[in-house]
Amino acid sequence: MNNNTSSKSSVGSIAVDAMGGDLGPQEVVEAIALTLKLSNSPKHITLVGQEDVLFSLLKSKKLDNDPRIDVFHASEIIGMHEKPVQSLKQKKDSSLVRSIELVKLGQCQAAVSCGNTGSLMACGTLKLRTMPGVERPALSSIWPGKTGHFVMLDVGANPSPKPEHLVHNAILGSWHHKCIFQKGAPPKVGLLSIGTEESKGHELVQATNELLKRTGDLINYIGPIEGFQVFNGDVDIVLCDGFTGNVLLKSSEGLYKMLKSEIKHEIKRTPWRIAGALLLSGCFKSIKGKLNPDRYSGAPLLGLKGNVIKSHGSANRHAISAAIMAATDFVRHDLNQHAEEDILLANERMKSS
Amino acid sequence: MNNNTSSKSSVGSIAVDAMGGDLGPQEVVEAIALTLKLSNSPKHITLVGQEDVLFSLLKSKKLDNDPRIDVFHASEIIGMHEKPVQSLKQKKDSSLVRSIELVKLGQCQAAVSCGNTGSLMACGTLKLRTMPGVERPALSSIWPGKTGHFVMLDVGANPSPKPEHLVHNAILGSWHHKCIFQKGAPPKVGLLSIGTEESKGHELVQATNELLKRTGDLINYIGPIEGFQVFNGDVDIVLCDGFTGNVLLKSSEGLYKMLKSEIKHEIKRTPWRIAGALLLSGCFKSIKGKLNPDRYSGAPLLGLKGNVIKSHGSANRHAISAAIMAATDFVRHDLNQHAEEDILLANERMKSS
Repeated sequence: MNNNTSSKSSVGSIAVDAMGGDLGPQEVVEAIALTLKLSNSPKHITLVGQEDVLFSLLKSKKLDNDPRIDVFHASEIIGMHEKPVQSLKQKKDSSLVRSIELVKLGQCQAAVSCGNTGSLMACGTLKLRTMPGVERPALSSIWPGKTGHFVMLDVGANPSPKPEHLVHNAILGSWHHKCIFQKGAPPKVGLLSIGTEESKGHELVQATNELLKRTGDLINYIGPIEGFQVFNGDVDIVLCDGFTGNVLLKSSEGLYKMLKSEIKHEIKRTPWRIAGALLLSGCFKSIKGKLNPDRYSGAPLLGLKGNVIKSHGSANRHAISAAIMAATDFVRHDLNQHAEEDILLANERMKSS
Repeated sequence: MNNNTSSKSSVGSIAVDAMGGDLGPQEVVEAIALTLKLSNSPKHITLVGQEDVLFSLLKSKKLDNDPRIDVFHASEIIGMHEKPVQSLKQKKDSSLVRSIELVKLGQCQAAVSCGNTGSLMACGTLKLRTMPGVERPALSSIWPGKTGHFVMLDVGANPSPKPEHLVHNAILGSWHHKCIFQKGAPPKVGLLSIGTEESKGHELVQATNELLKRTGDLINYIGPIEGFQVFNGDVDIVLCDGFTGNVLLKSSEGLYKMLKSEIKHEIKRTPWRIAGALLLSGCFKSIKGKLNPDRYSGAPLLGLKGNVIKSHGSANRHAISAAIMAATDFVRHDLNQHAEEDILLANERMKSS
């Protein structure tokens, strides 16, 4: 496995869809202002959206003459609940579509959007196409675990993958991890199953396990894992089909919310508990900080000829900034080029064995 | 839908595998002592295991002459890590196998075990066979949610079900809910998917959704649900394949454990926090009580010609007692008879539409 992410490519412009998020373009402009203050920020950002709105927002932040920012006009906005394929057909001049087109044309090196996930996945796939050797893209994400953060993929792009798709995802997810965390050791990949024995799980898991073993040193595959191991730090990459990953992502968020609301509800029941909670406010803040999804908000759509990063719909400035920084890291460390090389090698090894 | 669980059948004997759990036969005997003090306890319990060990434990609890208890000798014990099919072949006189046989012979009306899950599922299926109309059994379980408890199935018996299996499970799960919670309203069934739109999800989910709509009034089907809705009280039955359910069960437990250990770790960092935690001890206890898996520990293997209930390997006396009481409820409210009638009707409706 080529584990070298130290060589750095120069980062041109990152296209940022300014219109798609729940908090509107103002929050995106605030995110840009935050990002450009960081030492390793991208050299240039192209804000995509309605130019009159964006210029006025940039002016209010005194960024309207900043040479690191330009605005690319797009007159339409795709709403959160529009149907993906239909929205792309009807809104060709939307900020989402234009952001991806800027990547396709080579004018930007990555597109970041907190817009409609389905539309972004469909547009990315249709406009950019998958990289050589890859049939289907995967949506990857970073989760907090017991001993640090881990990558989980696919969380919804491909609900019925073939075994080879999961092998590609293992490679893409490993590069996602390497580009973001820059650790020396190759990230450990676990294949999510219902037991650690190779005989457990369904046909997809068993066939994928066999193929993963053939990839040799391309990934650091430790074998099938079970649900208990998702959060316990045993692996850096949790590999699963897009159905299971999506269900897991959303239900974990639901469980966390339920526990939080239970704690709040119980605290309010007596003045003593409220006093206790005040003494514990640092503790709660620290846990919230560790679990904060804003830190690693950028969920890349991996496996395309170009970088597309999804931030969540309700992303605030910090989350959007984190997604822009993730995009910058992917470009800087040539995620796609490294992954493509490994995937072509893996395809040969899968065939030849 | 026949929602009548008020007619009560008399409960004969419940077979309890005394040897399979992590805490040993002593904990099982303590569970029996607890259970027999309850007002709605079963009339009779057959303890299955090594009789010398069991008699001496019963004697120490002054239960050796209790007419409500007898001991059925079984010389062998299946360990937690033995392979299911092999363990059944090699240990025909094990407490697990004998417990199921007592149900098959009609000497007991249900078998409860905290032994090896795989062996219990295999033995239950091989010895008792599935009920008419059902091809594969399902492992059902009860989870704490925002507005009460809900049933989730399948959590691992059938990782690659056919759509019809999921329809049967919807009926079985509904009867599980009705027998345990005895609510007037028919339980709401949601089909776990990656979005609430019928077009979302994989082939299995789409085909199951179509079949579920054909069952008419046999179940209260509300449509596909997504991960966010698992814990938020939207449904009473979360219906999914055994792969997704198993992963979800184990990963939710893992997430809960991680959060608990994070909170403990953070609390220990300053004396003020420790003081705050003391003030909040009632709050934490109350939440633990609500989420306590012991309350509804019995996970039935549904769809068989007989009642088989799994309690978890590390079950304590309270959890084992809850499993025995669940078994008693299933017998008392004729779970299997009701479910079988509904399933045969559903099979007709699925064919005729």
